[in-house]
Amino acid sequence: MGEDWIFLVLLGLTMALVSWCMDYASAKSLQGTSLSEILCIGWIAFMHRGNVLLQYLAWVTYPMVLIMFASLFCHLVAPQSIGSGIPELKTILRGVVLKEYLTLKAFVAKVIGLTAGLGSGMPVGKEGPFVHIASICAAVLSKIMSIFSGVYENSAHNQDLLVCACAVGVATCFAAPVGGVLFSIEVTSTYFAVRNYWRGYFAATFSAFIFRVLSVWNKDAVTITALFRTNFRMEFPFDLQELPAFAIIGISCGFLGAFFVFLNRQVVLVMRRQTALTRFLTKHRLIYPAVVTLVIATLTFPPGFGQFMAGEVRGQASSLTVLKYHHLCVSNILSHQMFQFWMSAVSTTMPIPSGAFMPVFILGAAFGRLVGEIMATLFPNGILFDGIVYRILPGGYAVIGAAAMTGAVTHTVSTAVICFELTGQISHILPMMVAVILANMVAQGLQPSLYDSIIQVKK
Amino acid sequence: MGEDWIFLVLLGLTMALVSWCMDYASAKSLQGTSLSEILCIGWIAFMHRGNVLLQYLAWVTYPMVLIMFASLFCHLVAPQSIGSGIPELKTILRGVVLKEYLTLKAFVAKVIGLTAGLGSGMPVGKEGPFVHIASICAAVLSKIMSIFSGVYENSAHNQDLLVCACAVGVATCFAAPVGGVLFSIEVTSTYFAVRNYWRGYFAATFSAFIFRVLSVWNKDAVTITALFRTNFRMEFPFDLQELPAFAIIGISCGFLGAFFVFLNRQVVLVMRRQTALTRFLTKHRLIYPAVVTLVIATLTFPPGFGQFMAGEVRGQASSLTVLKYHHLCVSNILSHQMFQFWMSAVSTTMPIPSGAFMPVFILGAAFGRLVGEIMATLFPNGILFDGIVYRILPGGYAVIGAAAMTGAVTHTVSTAVICFELTGQISHILPMMVAVILANMVAQGLQPSLYDSIIQVKK
Repeated sequence: MGEDWIFLVLLGLTMALVSWCMDYASAKSLQGTSLSEILCIGWIAFMHRGNVLLQYLAWVTYPMVLIMFASLFCHLVAPQSIGSGIPELKTILRGVVLKEYLTLKAFVAKVIGLTAGLGSGMPVGKEGPFVHIASICAAVLSKIMSIFSGVYENSAHNQDLLVCACAVGVATCFAAPVGGVLFSIEVTSTYFAVRNYWRGYFAATFSAFIFRVLSVWNKDAVTITALFRTNFRMEFPFDLQELPAFAIIGISCGFLGAFFVFLNRQVVLVMRRQTALTRFLTKHRLIYPAVVTLVIATLTFPPGFGQFMAGEVRGQASSLTVLKYHHLCVSNILSHQMFQFWMSAVSTTMPIPSGAFMPVFILGAAFGRLVGEIMATLFPNGILFDGIVYRILPGGYAVIGAAAMTGAVTHTVSTAVICFELTGQISHILPMMVAVILANMVAQGLQPSLYDSIIQVKK
Repeated sequence: MGEDWIFLVLLGLTMALVSWCMDYASAKSLQGTSLSEILCIGWIAFMHRGNVLLQYLAWVTYPMVLIMFASLFCHLVAPQSIGSGIPELKTILRGVVLKEYLTLKAFVAKVIGLTAGLGSGMPVGKEGPFVHIASICAAVLSKIMSIFSGVYENSAHNQDLLVCACAVGVATCFAAPVGGVLFSIEVTSTYFAVRNYWRGYFAATFSAFIFRVLSVWNKDAVTITALFRTNFRMEFPFDLQELPAFAIIGISCGFLGAFFVFLNRQVVLVMRRQTALTRFLTKHRLIYPAVVTLVIATLTFPPGFGQFMAGEVRGQASSLTVLKYHHLCVSNILSHQMFQFWMSAVSTTMPIPSGAFMPVFILGAAFGRLVGEIMATLFPNGILFDGIVYRILPGGYAVIGAAAMTGAVTHTVSTAVICFELTGQISHILPMMVAVILANMVAQGLQPSLYDSIIQVKK
């Protein structure tokens, strides 16, 4: 580690603060959304003949304003802050110099744009952008540190620190230090130095720790626990007879993940083709995100299609309910799944800072939940073992689906570790890892990873 | 992965079977020990004037016979099977050719010797030897596979497969696939390829899976769960006020771990010096292990000192009770700790196949438990939060101590991951990682890792 520990501590501290502030701001903004939602539904219930058009306008205006603001802000301040950030970082770590990519300007644009995007409730993730933000922090910090020590002028050393920054980004996003380190290694590197692994561990643990302590201090949590804690029974999490279902989740998620990557690329390619429409959209940059937001918000409008989606679309935390409660309605999940799938694939192409990890995670969780509910319907009496009846836990299927789907889209296996750290439970470790490996085998055979696909398209 | 998957599946399958058979055999043997123990104690209780000498003979003969058999067998069949195996493998992976180290003969000697050693109840671990056994399996398998494919004649490729074999070894030992992969990377490599990481994951998951399925099939476990499952409450695992205690565990374990490495090396160096005694011992190889076993068995004799040790010395599974039950007696743990410390350091120098990981793990668990019990004594009413009183969980301290101590001795941070997978609970992840990092910082400043220390001594 040497003298880098000061650097790593500073990096961890900065990122923990950024992550927490951003969560705080976007949660406040989502409260705004929920408020408009509640008002809207309350209105219907109370007046019955309420002007649906007015309600609808209230419902779609809020996210549209936020997304258009994010898009405009990024375009004006730093266009390189658009998108996930992981593909570009992967390119940088292979030795290509991407100018202006690691500047303070990009930092400001990314943080403000991402906060607005998350606050709008659209299906955009914070993980990819966080990796970018952490890398900018590392680059700026090493510029400052180079005043004190010559080591920070060495470009090979700075590359090493960028890898650590990726780990810190993932770790502060999910409070998942181990998963963060592994995910950043898998996504960015082909060869890896063990000393970087230790640096990454140190910084990621520190930042995740501070991030969680800040929540305790703000009374969001009573003590340091997982971000989306589950409460499955531990003495009998699943039966061996359920293993084929887990394997089916893994294989299906492999196909679905490959299809997601394909869909995402097709949308980008269609937008890239030189037609009258795309020329028009390039000239008027705000129209594309506005239309996408309008369509998605329209479809999720509670009195319209939204009623079939159980209000699960707005806000990621609420979508994660699929991990928890018993017995959701199968048709509900199915419709949610179908909408969410193309909405996620399309909304990640909007010109705002947005990651695909969390939307894909939710998709996978919903798919797993679907399989779990079907299993629970097929075996309504649960599993009899030693005279005790154990009911099937559909939440466990959801966690496995989430890990398998994100694994398939990103071509990594460490998503399983991120899942353990996110949910705070490790009881399903073996079936989950089997599912993730199966999903990877299928997806790697069909499509490149989402990040490689974006790199190819951008060439 | 390519066509290696057949190889990895075969490796995983073989190792899972070996691990399970060995556990089965040594458990049967330990039942023998327990039987002699019960007879012995029952005798005292029943007769009151029972011949203590005869009981004592019964008590010490069993482990002595087993250890001497293990020592003799290894000496005659393959002397290279003595010891842990990780230091030698580290040397091989750096490109040094160690002849006769990866042969079928060494395999037989290691498996038989280790089973006898584990069955004797002495504080020897199975992790290091398992890494060796898995490497031999990989070497033999790649010789067989080279009949079908030329790839397996490529020595660089075979080195890659050896790294995977290390992961499989740790994974089948603890049913900890993720921890196994990470530990093997940290211990054996300075640079590693991400494609090896995937191969390791695949093989380790497969073997851990089969290993656990075998237990279910044999009705040892009702379903696939962690090997030493804990049951801490999850809604409030610890309070922020307990963090200083966790940090103290980490720092102390760093010092203790360094001292353990020092002690172990000193014992070896004293034995290496050319004196009349060592010449005599080299000539009569069975005397040293016999004397060590005799001394340790004598000290753990229940009517003697053993009564202060709560019968915790024989058998690792029973020693792991420190992780579980509430409120052990502090003086009990303290005496256990003091004995166990030098016994572990000495017994790992016996000329039999034996690892140090598990003994150190138990030492760390006992130390952590000690701190936990002191905390529970200092705060007998627990922690009041939101009107609910949460009692301090000394078991959580034990898990943290175990991870920190093994981390300090081996200079790795992935012991934390092994701990999660062993106990099946991840609730203490952040304090545990902080403790492991602190322990590593202290220990790395004071001493080389145990494996590097052994390599230095053997030069």
